[in-house]
Amino acid sequence: MTAAPFNDWIKAVQAQVEDALDAFLPPAASVPGKLHEAMRYTALGGGKRVRPLLVHASGALFGADARAVARAAAAVEMIHVYSLVHDDMPCMDDDELRRGKPTVHVAYDEATALLVGDALQAQAFQVLAEADTVPPARQVAMLRLLAQAAGSGGMCGGQAIDLDSVGLALEREELERMHRLKTGPLLRASVLLGALCGKDLEPRELDALDAYAKAVGLAFQVVDDVLDATADSATLGKTAGKDAADNKPTYVSILGLESSRALAEQLRREAHEALAPFGEQALRLRELADLIVRRKA
Amino acid sequence: MTAAPFNDWIKAVQAQVEDALDAFLPPAASVPGKLHEAMRYTALGGGKRVRPLLVHASGALFGADARAVARAAAAVEMIHVYSLVHDDMPCMDDDELRRGKPTVHVAYDEATALLVGDALQAQAFQVLAEADTVPPARQVAMLRLLAQAAGSGGMCGGQAIDLDSVGLALEREELERMHRLKTGPLLRASVLLGALCGKDLEPRELDALDAYAKAVGLAFQVVDDVLDATADSATLGKTAGKDAADNKPTYVSILGLESSRALAEQLRREAHEALAPFGEQALRLRELADLIVRRKA
Repeated sequence: MTAAPFNDWIKAVQAQVEDALDAFLPPAASVPGKLHEAMRYTALGGGKRVRPLLVHASGALFGADARAVARAAAAVEMIHVYSLVHDDMPCMDDDELRRGKPTVHVAYDEATALLVGDALQAQAFQVLAEADTVPPARQVAMLRLLAQAAGSGGMCGGQAIDLDSVGLALEREELERMHRLKTGPLLRASVLLGALCGKDLEPRELDALDAYAKAVGLAFQVVDDVLDATADSATLGKTAGKDAADNKPTYVSILGLESSRALAEQLRREAHEALAPFGEQALRLRELADLIVRRKA
Repeated sequence: MTAAPFNDWIKAVQAQVEDALDAFLPPAASVPGKLHEAMRYTALGGGKRVRPLLVHASGALFGADARAVARAAAAVEMIHVYSLVHDDMPCMDDDELRRGKPTVHVAYDEATALLVGDALQAQAFQVLAEADTVPPARQVAMLRLLAQAAGSGGMCGGQAIDLDSVGLALEREELERMHRLKTGPLLRASVLLGALCGKDLEPRELDALDAYAKAVGLAFQVVDDVLDATADSATLGKTAGKDAADNKPTYVSILGLESSRALAEQLRREAHEALAPFGEQALRLRELADLIVRRKA
């Protein structure tokens, strides 16, 4: 059987992710209605769904159960969305536009944005913990992985370093550490969670997926910096040029534009190489690495 | 063997909880240091530790493994502490004093307070997911319970209703619903998590513990309202009279002071009755119900 064209696969997965989020978010009609409505406002109807795509691609590699993949994809996306809601708040990046819509604290208010983020984080763990689609021991491993990726040793830690780096002239090494924490752990968790929906991972499978996730995670951030410096707000669906305006260190400010682009391309090749042991089965993961590096928004 | 006096038991458990939090929080020396220091600032060195006491008391009822109890107690306290940090922020209650110390956004800054809460929530799930002290299926049940208690159907939902109720003249029934969500689910989770550290619960054990937790949870809030109206800030370790100043509906504003006190006493008796099936073994849970109703701060 020939695999569907990549663009068709993307669209199909994005539609499945939207359905899963809709199913796993509390109904807007249930109390407290305003909170649930705001959770849905920010989580549904948009986003590239990069992390869920990674979950699905990696699940496909090991023939994972579709219901397990749907839950894992929704869980990582809820963690990602909560981090955006909090990151956009006035005390953080103070951003008014996200995915082309007013941010939650603008559309509602700051207190609601705070609670939406808090509740989405809890909901992510709830979605994973309510599944009965993988054996309990592996389910615990998945919950542990998500918690580690979300916490102070992962995403929150990266945000904290990011916050403290404003106005500093970071070395490339420090910048990489910050980005490894900020975007890396959740992208890594996405790749591994998808695989764990299918089977317990052997060490060499784990190593190969780790190497892939590391390259893709870093490439994602390099490309984000390039786009922030070159694209316009309408294309990005968020305010462009924020990093320079906020005096944040970026790959573009440290390496320059052309070297940043070359680095992204090199990381794309590294991601492909990491997948070599999986052969043809890793098609979607390879295509996603290409998409992440060559995207325009 | 005669049980130790209640006060000695309390002090011993509080010391164990402090040790467990110290052990399960990331070291301040590890990156990102400022975030970890702020997490420790707010979680360590204070608090009545009501929820951990419930975990320990309920664990004692079923002879639970001490390491499992230590993790469950630390996890519920991290969820509680994160909720206080976010609740104290300017966009919520805007409180400057908590447990007798400046709140996190005052001692550090708002962005740090936001991240401290976010990271503590993730850490709570991580602490539970990293245990290998209970069978995996029960561990998943514990993680599910904590997520449900923390999320929009639990604590966050209660906060959202609280937020929307400012300035409203709630009926007693609506007030109870708000408080059932705001403080009830995490107190219930504490009781059940402690028990689950010991064994899978039979339906009638679950029902009895649920009835106890429901009575204690409501009593806790009624007494909180009474204390907010009658005690001073120094005794409370937080700003007294906030509810009236914020025009928030409370038991005292709806029932009056004396009827609120009578209600608390009635709930204390209901908590005792719920424990009848467990006999002498439930000593600590009975004593905790007494403490919660008769506390002065």
